[in-house]
Amino acid sequence: MSRTWANSLDLHLDARAPRIRAAVEDALREAVTSGRLPAGTRLPPTRALAADLGVARNTVADAYAQLVAEGWLEALVGSGTWVADRHVVEPPSPSPPSGVPRTVRYDLRSGEPDLGLFPRRAWLAAARAVLREMPDRLLGYPDPRGVPELRVALAGYLGRARGVSVDPDRIVVCAGMTHALAVLGRLLRARGAESVAVEGYGHLSHHGLIERQGLRPVPLPVDANGARPGDLGGVSAALLTPAHQFPLGVTLHPERRRAFVDWAVRSGGIVIEDDYDGEFRYDRQPVGAMQALAPEHVVYAGTASKSLAPGLRLGWLVVPGALRDELIEVKEASGATTSSLDQLTLAQLIASGGYDRQVRAARLRYRRRRDRLVSTLGRRVPGVSVRGISAGLQALVELRPDLREREVIARARERGLALDGLEGYTAIDERRDRGALVVGYTRPPEHAYTTALARLCAALAEGGS
Amino acid sequence: MSRTWANSLDLHLDARAPRIRAAVEDALREAVTSGRLPAGTRLPPTRALAADLGVARNTVADAYAQLVAEGWLEALVGSGTWVADRHVVEPPSPSPPSGVPRTVRYDLRSGEPDLGLFPRRAWLAAARAVLREMPDRLLGYPDPRGVPELRVALAGYLGRARGVSVDPDRIVVCAGMTHALAVLGRLLRARGAESVAVEGYGHLSHHGLIERQGLRPVPLPVDANGARPGDLGGVSAALLTPAHQFPLGVTLHPERRRAFVDWAVRSGGIVIEDDYDGEFRYDRQPVGAMQALAPEHVVYAGTASKSLAPGLRLGWLVVPGALRDELIEVKEASGATTSSLDQLTLAQLIASGGYDRQVRAARLRYRRRRDRLVSTLGRRVPGVSVRGISAGLQALVELRPDLREREVIARARERGLALDGLEGYTAIDERRDRGALVVGYTRPPEHAYTTALARLCAALAEGGS
Repeated sequence: MSRTWANSLDLHLDARAPRIRAAVEDALREAVTSGRLPAGTRLPPTRALAADLGVARNTVADAYAQLVAEGWLEALVGSGTWVADRHVVEPPSPSPPSGVPRTVRYDLRSGEPDLGLFPRRAWLAAARAVLREMPDRLLGYPDPRGVPELRVALAGYLGRARGVSVDPDRIVVCAGMTHALAVLGRLLRARGAESVAVEGYGHLSHHGLIERQGLRPVPLPVDANGARPGDLGGVSAALLTPAHQFPLGVTLHPERRRAFVDWAVRSGGIVIEDDYDGEFRYDRQPVGAMQALAPEHVVYAGTASKSLAPGLRLGWLVVPGALRDELIEVKEASGATTSSLDQLTLAQLIASGGYDRQVRAARLRYRRRRDRLVSTLGRRVPGVSVRGISAGLQALVELRPDLREREVIARARERGLALDGLEGYTAIDERRDRGALVVGYTRPPEHAYTTALARLCAALAEGGS
Repeated sequence: MSRTWANSLDLHLDARAPRIRAAVEDALREAVTSGRLPAGTRLPPTRALAADLGVARNTVADAYAQLVAEGWLEALVGSGTWVADRHVVEPPSPSPPSGVPRTVRYDLRSGEPDLGLFPRRAWLAAARAVLREMPDRLLGYPDPRGVPELRVALAGYLGRARGVSVDPDRIVVCAGMTHALAVLGRLLRARGAESVAVEGYGHLSHHGLIERQGLRPVPLPVDANGARPGDLGGVSAALLTPAHQFPLGVTLHPERRRAFVDWAVRSGGIVIEDDYDGEFRYDRQPVGAMQALAPEHVVYAGTASKSLAPGLRLGWLVVPGALRDELIEVKEASGATTSSLDQLTLAQLIASGGYDRQVRAARLRYRRRRDRLVSTLGRRVPGVSVRGISAGLQALVELRPDLREREVIARARERGLALDGLEGYTAIDERRDRGALVVGYTRPPEHAYTTALARLCAALAEGGS
């Protein structure tokens, strides 16, 4: 292990300077933000750095603690202090204007659930039950389709919670949605596909992933009824978010569902239903999965990333019978299978009712978060409105014509709040008369939500040129 | 969930037949082995099937229990009885002659450690510590390189246990060795490689995986000094098992190591060091990793599959600086990352000393197993000898000229013992005057080892035409 850090890093400090703690803190922060200390670097023990700098050990310890609190560093008991991953604290897009302070303390970007809600005790209890009861044999090389216990548990869950028509034999467990999409992309490519329709607003990273499998993403326009199935001539598949369009927040209209399915039946195309947050509907029972309309033409894709945590890397596909064996083969060629312990733990959590409890608890919290977002904006920022159905983990906040997306984002950053603009999720060349924010109201920890909302309002209230 | 099984399966039974329990058992076994009941199918509750067949419930329960004991079915508390994975009980290759009874109770095929040794308590304790202490943030989308805590723990471990020259920044965590090889293969392909040298004896599945990434595997001859670096003209990389050639069991001679490294330096080629069982050397300190000779030209690949369990799907690469960013990009395109909980749990296990303890305990047990294999064969089967160094999880057992590999394997199967022949690991066209078995002495549970050895001896003692 490299122990040379303290020698190779010069913090440019004068130990006699006033406010020496702030100086140490700033110097460290600068070293991290500038990349001089890359993510994953281990910092020297506080004692060693303090001796090196000629300051009190507490001065260094306090500076470390502050930077840990800010997310620049991370500390794990027994293994020291590290430079944290940059992507945790920097919004991926759009880039903020240079010169903006980079200290992000609040985060309303989309993509993550409230990680503080993760049921640590229930997960541990399920893991304990699995480790107590599982036969040794299941510790061997896992079935590439996923362990039977999980496939059965998921079949039951998806049937009752999402109306998915499913036999455990049609389920393939993946390492999260990204892996599922990569495998599907490769499968399509292997079958000769050249392009895949995607929604004109969505995760550009998903479109990039599709491209990496050798396919061209073809963006479809999206309106208040969801994606428009107009131009499906040349494509072999269509990737949709029917329950809750990401990020516009609309549902796919029943007629549109029908039209996509008809296209698939007629042309031999495949609809990929990305049901990333289908469990989270707040005003009524969620609309059932589109897959049930045509199980032989729709691939259903689900994930534990929103209901539990992305860190688990657990996702699943429900595939038409005609695709199953080929898909498993392509998945095997990717070399990636998921831990059987994790799969059995999730199966146990579902079988014990813990998963449903978790979804209910999260649904309640997220509904309240969304309600507060709507009411706070309604009260404090005239002319700015939340669009889309009452569902999911993020909301589209449409701006007044006098507010510019990038300026709002920049102002929020000055206040230590990270925001996403719709621009970063736009794959289609379409003139919109208003900017919009994609507000991930589930991301902040509970105690930070009030302040995060206040800063959002402040960033929206100013401005107008 | 499908509840129709009992209706759709006709067991062809007469409930008044004598030995009804055996009849139920045989009918079920036949339904499973013939594929009429595919792996992953849920069986009806004993009560329902008993009513269906008009037999006592215990009769069905006993039949289920017997088939669970045989590995055809599996039962998990609270989720019923299932048709188990076939690959657990059927040897993958070579196929046994038809007509051989398919009831395998003992297994000396290679590829798996003793799964009964998996440190369930230590793993759970480490997971508990992680779940208690980890910051919420680490439950988010994981770093594609692997969590820093694990990369640091591995850097320390690999440095001290395998002499690997390593900075945590050069480590990339993968979902097991297969995923690591698939990612490396794609990387090589993306850099324009067309072929990769492999050892002429080895995992044909690895060669197949390389082919699936669009590369041609070129087998090198292997002799008592390991792979021969003769014909590396056209290849871009060489995949080797230097510490303990799989499956011949020799080490790569220092001069050969030098020759491969020289080739890599000279040609810009890459050596991939598959150190699948490097920790397991029994007669002396293990030879250090080849990677230390030339960290900028050797990719080191390790795995927890042998030291802990394949079911965890945890592996790691140590990559040259010049390849790192490209490799991470290719890995991201595969869409697969590993659970951060699992990564942190392994990090905790290493940091707490539990991993080293586990390796020591396994090393002791496997050494004894190997010693018993050598002494038992020496005593009871004249002319049959164990080849290779005292190391690893399997041994090459060279047959007498009068014994034919396939016949020995078929005779073992008749005795309920699954064996692997060298033929199934041969990728090179080479005349060998003797057949050989690849005996995985770590696979049976401790209580079954004596019987497994006895059956091996019996299968070897007969015959000679």
